[in-house]
Amino acid sequence: MKVGVVGLGYWGPNLIRNFLSNKEVEKVCGCDSNISRLKFIKSRFPMVELTEKWDELLNGYNLDIIVISTPVATHFPLAKASLENGKHIWVEKPFTFNSNEAMELIETAERKNLKLFVDHTFVYTGAVMKVKELVDKKVLGDILYFDSVRVNLGLFQHDVNVIWDLACHDFSIMDYIINKKVVGITANGIANYYEHENIAHIAVYFDDNCFAHFHVNWTSPVKIRRVLLGGRKKMLLWDDLHPAEKIKIYDSGVEVNSLDQIHNALVQYRTGDMYSPKVNETEALTLGVNEFIASINENRKPLTSGEDGLRIVKILESAEASIKNKGKFINVAV
Amino acid sequence: MKVGVVGLGYWGPNLIRNFLSNKEVEKVCGCDSNISRLKFIKSRFPMVELTEKWDELLNGYNLDIIVISTPVATHFPLAKASLENGKHIWVEKPFTFNSNEAMELIETAERKNLKLFVDHTFVYTGAVMKVKELVDKKVLGDILYFDSVRVNLGLFQHDVNVIWDLACHDFSIMDYIINKKVVGITANGIANYYEHENIAHIAVYFDDNCFAHFHVNWTSPVKIRRVLLGGRKKMLLWDDLHPAEKIKIYDSGVEVNSLDQIHNALVQYRTGDMYSPKVNETEALTLGVNEFIASINENRKPLTSGEDGLRIVKILESAEASIKNKGKFINVAV
Amino acid sequence: MKVGVVGLGYWGPNLIRNFLSNKEVEKVCGCDSNISRLKFIKSRFPMVELTEKWDELLNGYNLDIIVISTPVATHFPLAKASLENGKHIWVEKPFTFNSNEAMELIETAERKNLKLFVDHTFVYTGAVMKVKELVDKKVLGDILYFDSVRVNLGLFQHDVNVIWDLACHDFSIMDYIINKKVVGITANGIANYYEHENIAHIAVYFDDNCFAHFHVNWTSPVKIRRVLLGGRKKMLLWDDLHPAEKIKIYDSGVEVNSLDQIHNALVQYRTGDMYSPKVNETEALTLGVNEFIASINENRKPLTSGEDGLRIVKILESAEASIKNKGKFINVAV
Amino acid sequence: MKVGVVGLGYWGPNLIRNFLSNKEVEKVCGCDSNISRLKFIKSRFPMVELTEKWDELLNGYNLDIIVISTPVATHFPLAKASLENGKHIWVEKPFTFNSNEAMELIETAERKNLKLFVDHTFVYTGAVMKVKELVDKKVLGDILYFDSVRVNLGLFQHDVNVIWDLACHDFSIMDYIINKKVVGITANGIANYYEHENIAHIAVYFDDNCFAHFHVNWTSPVKIRRVLLGGRKKMLLWDDLHPAEKIKIYDSGVEVNSLDQIHNALVQYRTGDMYSPKVNETEALTLGVNEFIASINENRKPLTSGEDGLRIVKILESAEASIKNKGKFINVAV
Repeated sequence: MKVGVVGLGYWGPNLIRNFLSNKEVEKVCGCDSNISRLKFIKSRFPMVELTEKWDELLNGYNLDIIVISTPVATHFPLAKASLENGKHIWVEKPFTFNSNEAMELIETAERKNLKLFVDHTFVYTGAVMKVKELVDKKVLGDILYFDSVRVNLGLFQHDVNVIWDLACHDFSIMDYIINKKVVGITANGIANYYEHENIAHIAVYFDDNCFAHFHVNWTSPVKIRRVLLGGRKKMLLWDDLHPAEKIKIYDSGVEVNSLDQIHNALVQYRTGDMYSPKVNETEALTLGVNEFIASINENRKPLTSGEDGLRIVKILESAEASIKNKGKFINVAV
Repeated sequence: MKVGVVGLGYWGPNLIRNFLSNKEVEKVCGCDSNISRLKFIKSRFPMVELTEKWDELLNGYNLDIIVISTPVATHFPLAKASLENGKHIWVEKPFTFNSNEAMELIETAERKNLKLFVDHTFVYTGAVMKVKELVDKKVLGDILYFDSVRVNLGLFQHDVNVIWDLACHDFSIMDYIINKKVVGITANGIANYYEHENIAHIAVYFDDNCFAHFHVNWTSPVKIRRVLLGGRKKMLLWDDLHPAEKIKIYDSGVEVNSLDQIHNALVQYRTGDMYSPKVNETEALTLGVNEFIASINENRKPLTSGEDGLRIVKILESAEASIKNKGKFINVAV
Repeated sequence: MKVGVVGLGYWGPNLIRNFLSNKEVEKVCGCDSNISRLKFIKSRFPMVELTEKWDELLNGYNLDIIVISTPVATHFPLAKASLENGKHIWVEKPFTFNSNEAMELIETAERKNLKLFVDHTFVYTGAVMKVKELVDKKVLGDILYFDSVRVNLGLFQHDVNVIWDLACHDFSIMDYIINKKVVGITANGIANYYEHENIAHIAVYFDDNCFAHFHVNWTSPVKIRRVLLGGRKKMLLWDDLHPAEKIKIYDSGVEVNSLDQIHNALVQYRTGDMYSPKVNETEALTLGVNEFIASINENRKPLTSGEDGLRIVKILESAEASIKNKGKFINVAV
Repeated sequence: MKVGVVGLGYWGPNLIRNFLSNKEVEKVCGCDSNISRLKFIKSRFPMVELTEKWDELLNGYNLDIIVISTPVATHFPLAKASLENGKHIWVEKPFTFNSNEAMELIETAERKNLKLFVDHTFVYTGAVMKVKELVDKKVLGDILYFDSVRVNLGLFQHDVNVIWDLACHDFSIMDYIINKKVVGITANGIANYYEHENIAHIAVYFDDNCFAHFHVNWTSPVKIRRVLLGGRKKMLLWDDLHPAEKIKIYDSGVEVNSLDQIHNALVQYRTGDMYSPKVNETEALTLGVNEFIASINENRKPLTSGEDGLRIVKILESAEASIKNKGKFINVAV
């Protein structure tokens, strides 16, 4: 297959490297309007053909696949044009700026029988795959809550707030792991430096008394990436920055036989052993590229399809609506 | 002075021990309706006189001070009776069940010229005093946000949710450290086991673009007690569980000269040295007892007075109103 | 039983509290030449009879047991007199100043059919009991090495160096866990402040290619208490300062099928899951008191007997001889 | 300058990348007898000319510099030939297999007025440079001890034990930081898998009551890289694996006014604030390449010269002699 990558910023070299190393890819081309980025890419990947012009990428190399790694506002026109020209597409997260755009791209891909892959890259990490496996096997029991923290002294984005930049990752992780219906969202936060929020707290309500919360912050002096997952049987901690023990499963919980017991017992909780399974360390992007190409070869939807991207865009839209209205509860069904 | 303690549960022995060791206290009496608690207290403090009967404590020992360490619903009647009988009072947190009760107690104490101490015990810890000192000296610059996490596998309370139990501490810490006006509150959370919420997230909006957030959870497999405090000049991390380095001040921040810079610069943040000051390790309760007795001797308000307790009760009431309405924004002025 | 405790310094209150709470103990008496310590003990334990005079303790209360918690140089005369007067004895660690003293006490106790308990208190901790269980069940496979670190900014002892003070604990832990013959010892270190070493490194050679090392330091700015235990099948980390996960078992190791493989393979090691078992949190001293009293009632040797104390004294003597001779190898058979 | 690199194993690509990016280097060539390594290097650095033949590298490209990154046994012949052919040389650590080889290379380089750089790469890390600066400025006061731990589940080396592989790094760090004379060495350890030791503990005695200790282990389930540096005024912890706070300076210590004080005071130590300076994060190898090329241009010895390499080889030889004799004290003067 022949692959073209548009947008060669921070993530571009990783995309090029991973497509280059997939054995079904015979050629990778690149496109960016910034000449210095083209020079940088050339020095690292001399075999990649490069152009400044989008039209040339779209039409000039007989490509099968277009990878869109540009600012989110441009995802829709580039993706739409690619599909209309018969290309399978890979779109970086967040999928689109709004759900209408997402729905139109999904419809276009279906009409043209082309594959649409949304790069929810964390879904392909060993840690998330392991958590998914544990949840699906009911090791934790029914999930009661999902609590996520992703804070850092991080890059401000030009065009979007910290929800679209960071929480987007965590929404896609939650969406993959928890098989429950979201019914409402609230978001609170603050913009200390310019019009976009640098701190946000998003609460997600599910239809069966399950609850999720997301804390994202571009202005924390320390870096934390941690998810707590509470189940009726066991509880899980995923610390993505731990060098070796990323996932810990605690045989701990609250045990209630009757209401009366809660009201009277001095100690209602139970703590037991902890277990930390080894996690696959294959680079997530490698597995994502494999899945995308397999979905094309097998003529099926990829694991992170346009529909998955759409659900996350709906959550992002709702969070945005809420944070602009001081935490107003937004009904949403995804 | 002669001191009577009513309510000899978990916190009772600490109160008795600290009043006993204050050199201005000549006698300590105790009262609890639970005989087994009286026996336990007798075995540990043979010099303490004990009674099952509240009336006996109130009238029988010629006391100067009554310490109220009972469930929150009983604070008001016990405190009111104590004041009307001419006793100075120490009330455990949370001060009262609602702000009307709090206001009536404040008014009664003033009318009778008695001292009213609310045990916001964290205000007397070395860590909080150090943070207060740093904020007051403008070491951090203008405060942008206060972010608090207090989670654990903890005891469910019979009568109140996790906000009244745990967040009450953090509200009093915030109130002491940050000299800004609170204008609104939202709270989200869930009750997984009985009618009271075991997880809550509370957002507090100030009048000058400052923001605070509180995460409390009785059902976390790991124990975390951490506050992030972001300032325009520096940032602070308080990890109350660190054995030695409880407070860290980071010479880090986001630096913006113009809007344009944010939109174009690749890296807008600055990281520098970190500094961890030694923190006073005197037991907070010892210092609280000293302050209370000094306020009586000097005929002045204590550092944690009824007015301080009232502000926290207002915040608790607002958080309660919000969490029962899916995060509705509640206007509050404290 | 009636118990007398001689030496009421730092450890004295813990001994008194634990003997008092054992249901077979009807009376506890105490003795110290320091009047202020007697007053302190009286304030905390009003039911304990106290005396300044050793003879009075030895003869005056019709005691069954004498607990010796004085500086090590006085252990022998106090223990000897106690045994000769028909008392069972509990001796704090280190047992005696030299092995001759230890052997004489063992012989005397046997002759008089009295029980001699040496307070190797770590043997009774949940962590050590769990490690012992895992080693005995061959979970780790054959033990290859035992590596211990115990460093802190700690109290200098008047009369002994850091080996006798701190490494004594670790030797008793090693001796309990590892069923192998020690054949030689070397020790290196330095005395920076007075005649006794404040830093020491002790190497212990066993008869079957197993090796142990101990690092003790009174002058470290950070506190570390950690043991690594390497087995042919699995490896174990015991971090005694971790609040919850004191013991971790790693399914990791080095796998060698033939010599050739080591010389050629790029990666010879294997890493797998980690498992952290819950550890009994009962106070070690409580279990030690139980064991001592059970050994008297059942007329058998306690788990930490005079013979166990003697082996540790021999190791201490050898380490002392080596450190005074720049790490000279000392043959020892224990 | 034209640079040839011989030995393109694990470290080769880093050497090539850093020489390529130095602006005074116009050409980089490479040599390895392993064809698959040549192919790998070609794919990553298409501009590098490659050969299987050492003679071709030595004579065929008109090189100014030869970089020797082969197993230690081959360092001497390759280095000797390079110098005799008029090339400046960069030799990976450990410099040579014995001190005679090292001395001969130093003599040859001097005779031919060529520069000899030994790659003690840690000397060029931001952390070591910062520690050196603090020690030289007497921030810690007189150095009392240097305690180093470098353990991991690591690659066994074919030809040398863990001392030559890992402790070599730590010896060069100690040698750079501490300006004191080494007078003696002991080493203890064990070989559990083949003839070379996988665990070693090395003690180094200085001429003025300063002491160093090194713990290296290829068979630890956890990775630790930590140095404690004790001074009379302050103490320092360098944790090379901490993501942000690699160096911590503790205003802690032991304070002794008279011998009597040690013997009587209950607490002889002092703890104060902690300070963690920001550390330069430039890649050490980049700075090493800069220093080497500057030393050639300025016709002076580099910071890590043959003499520095020789001192480390002497320490390695002594440690080897000691470990083969159960910790025998080896006199050495470096």
